[in-house]
Amino acid sequence: MSRKVVLSGARPTGALHIGNYLGAVSNWVRLQDEYDCYFFIADWHALTTGYEDTSDYKANIDEVVMDLYAAGLDPDKCCIFLQSAIKEHAELHLLFSMITPLPWLERCPTYKDQLAQMDEKNIRTYGFLGYPCLQAADILIYKADYVPVGEDQVPHVEMTREIARRFNFIFGPVFPEPEPLLTESKVLPGLDGRKMSKSYGNTIALRDKGEVLRKKVMDMVTDPARIRKDDPGHPEICPVFAYHRIFNKDETGQIEADCRAGAIGCVACKKNLYNKLSAFLEPIHKRRGEIEANPSMIRDIIEKGNCKAGKIVTETMAEVRKAMKIDWE
Amino acid sequence: MSRKVVLSGARPTGALHIGNYLGAVSNWVRLQDEYDCYFFIADWHALTTGYEDTSDYKANIDEVVMDLYAAGLDPDKCCIFLQSAIKEHAELHLLFSMITPLPWLERCPTYKDQLAQMDEKNIRTYGFLGYPCLQAADILIYKADYVPVGEDQVPHVEMTREIARRFNFIFGPVFPEPEPLLTESKVLPGLDGRKMSKSYGNTIALRDKGEVLRKKVMDMVTDPARIRKDDPGHPEICPVFAYHRIFNKDETGQIEADCRAGAIGCVACKKNLYNKLSAFLEPIHKRRGEIEANPSMIRDIIEKGNCKAGKIVTETMAEVRKAMKIDWE
Repeated sequence: MSRKVVLSGARPTGALHIGNYLGAVSNWVRLQDEYDCYFFIADWHALTTGYEDTSDYKANIDEVVMDLYAAGLDPDKCCIFLQSAIKEHAELHLLFSMITPLPWLERCPTYKDQLAQMDEKNIRTYGFLGYPCLQAADILIYKADYVPVGEDQVPHVEMTREIARRFNFIFGPVFPEPEPLLTESKVLPGLDGRKMSKSYGNTIALRDKGEVLRKKVMDMVTDPARIRKDDPGHPEICPVFAYHRIFNKDETGQIEADCRAGAIGCVACKKNLYNKLSAFLEPIHKRRGEIEANPSMIRDIIEKGNCKAGKIVTETMAEVRKAMKIDWE
Repeated sequence: MSRKVVLSGARPTGALHIGNYLGAVSNWVRLQDEYDCYFFIADWHALTTGYEDTSDYKANIDEVVMDLYAAGLDPDKCCIFLQSAIKEHAELHLLFSMITPLPWLERCPTYKDQLAQMDEKNIRTYGFLGYPCLQAADILIYKADYVPVGEDQVPHVEMTREIARRFNFIFGPVFPEPEPLLTESKVLPGLDGRKMSKSYGNTIALRDKGEVLRKKVMDMVTDPARIRKDDPGHPEICPVFAYHRIFNKDETGQIEADCRAGAIGCVACKKNLYNKLSAFLEPIHKRRGEIEANPSMIRDIIEKGNCKAGKIVTETMAEVRKAMKIDWE
């Protein structure tokens, strides 16, 4: 029996951070053993909000491939490919655009949110409105059964299901309706306690190590009420403690008690975290070292993935054109 | 010195009628000697309004190719190709979607008109809103200098120019700004005096001949005030007279005088027109006969055109990706 298909993508907006790793990529690493997995670099999607400055576009693609490999994705187990190399995504997006009612897109809950959040950018474009339609093409062209997403992305998977349903209703059954695969989310705050996000400059990159990593950890915000080392601390509001909970499970109880008692200072607590984080990231850095030492691996991974993806989309598009009765060729 | 590039397209919505011929295709036949011409079957465009019933889609493509050949387009002189065979149109459309402000499309003068006119159809879709963006991709991917259009299509060429300008502004100069090449319009009414349109069922198809053609002409509406043959007629409101003006120039003066004097009856006047129309269409039917006798010509014409078009778009897209700095491959 063939395995169920999983599809997910990452926008190439620079180095992945440990929030991305915990929230998505570590999950992908687990999924690759159980499912037929397609993970794509969503470079066309990156244009919806980033078309005005593409100077890092290509370097960012390399960076994401290196990070995905470093994080443990195995190109022999899963298919890692570049969206823009598979032109059929654009073709299916165009065909879906013909049957996607405008109000579905206009009422998409994330659409107005993002418009409001990003008002400094010039994103009131046709493509930004339509990106759930492109996403539907990305997912359905591989006939994905599951789409691993965070809670906030569930409406997009729902839209993909609706587009699949509408296509099947008009032209006959071609697409399965994919289900979201909710990632159990370990919420990791940024260095300053806010949400970890590249735009806040409060991230730890997956590639950070040594002095860079040490300095980031030592500069982390802690309980602001704690001035002197023997003041009692409030671990529940301290980002450093939130990190210990994830990267230093064994000592969490002890650290919490010591902090509340004023028995451990923030500096020592951070040094401890730095050591644990270093150990946690070590295998990732080791794999990153492999690919940095042999950068042609980047192209090999993508070409292998593009080749596999290309075969699937050729089959799906033949089926789509036949169902639509537009297979003139 | 290389010749200027002309691009235009025809939606495959069935047999071309003599209104299409006079308004557009006869002009294309002239242009093919003077310019580097690309004429495409706009089958993806046909989906924007016709996605719900595609049962005639493939037959309509064959029909348009036969009509274009019959009308005098020479595949050795111009490039006749199928839009959906050139996937790069979909890719460039997607890239343009990222930079096309939504209000440009929402305010497009023809958009609201068509929405109002076609309200029985379910066309409030994403693709219908964006079709000027697809049209821009169709035109600019061949770096067309001129686009032969009727007056009503000028706003679309204007939109194409704006998209070209915006692309060039953001990413550097890649596209020329094409100019509309206004077709000197000979307005030919339909059989009932209204605008000739397939949806009114008042057309003469380019392929009509013999009894079919005769019956259509004999059933034409004339001056309703003329009951008996010797009643004075009003040629200025008679569709049959409008046809004489175009297809029977030499006798126009005489017919007008005879009609006003009640010296010629409508039946005789129509028989005369039928003979003139038959003679006019004869060379078209002769060429149509060639391709009907040898239907593999249809595929040969399109494959030859696709091949030429494919080479151009490969070059243009390489340039586009380079200018956008997204040429990772």
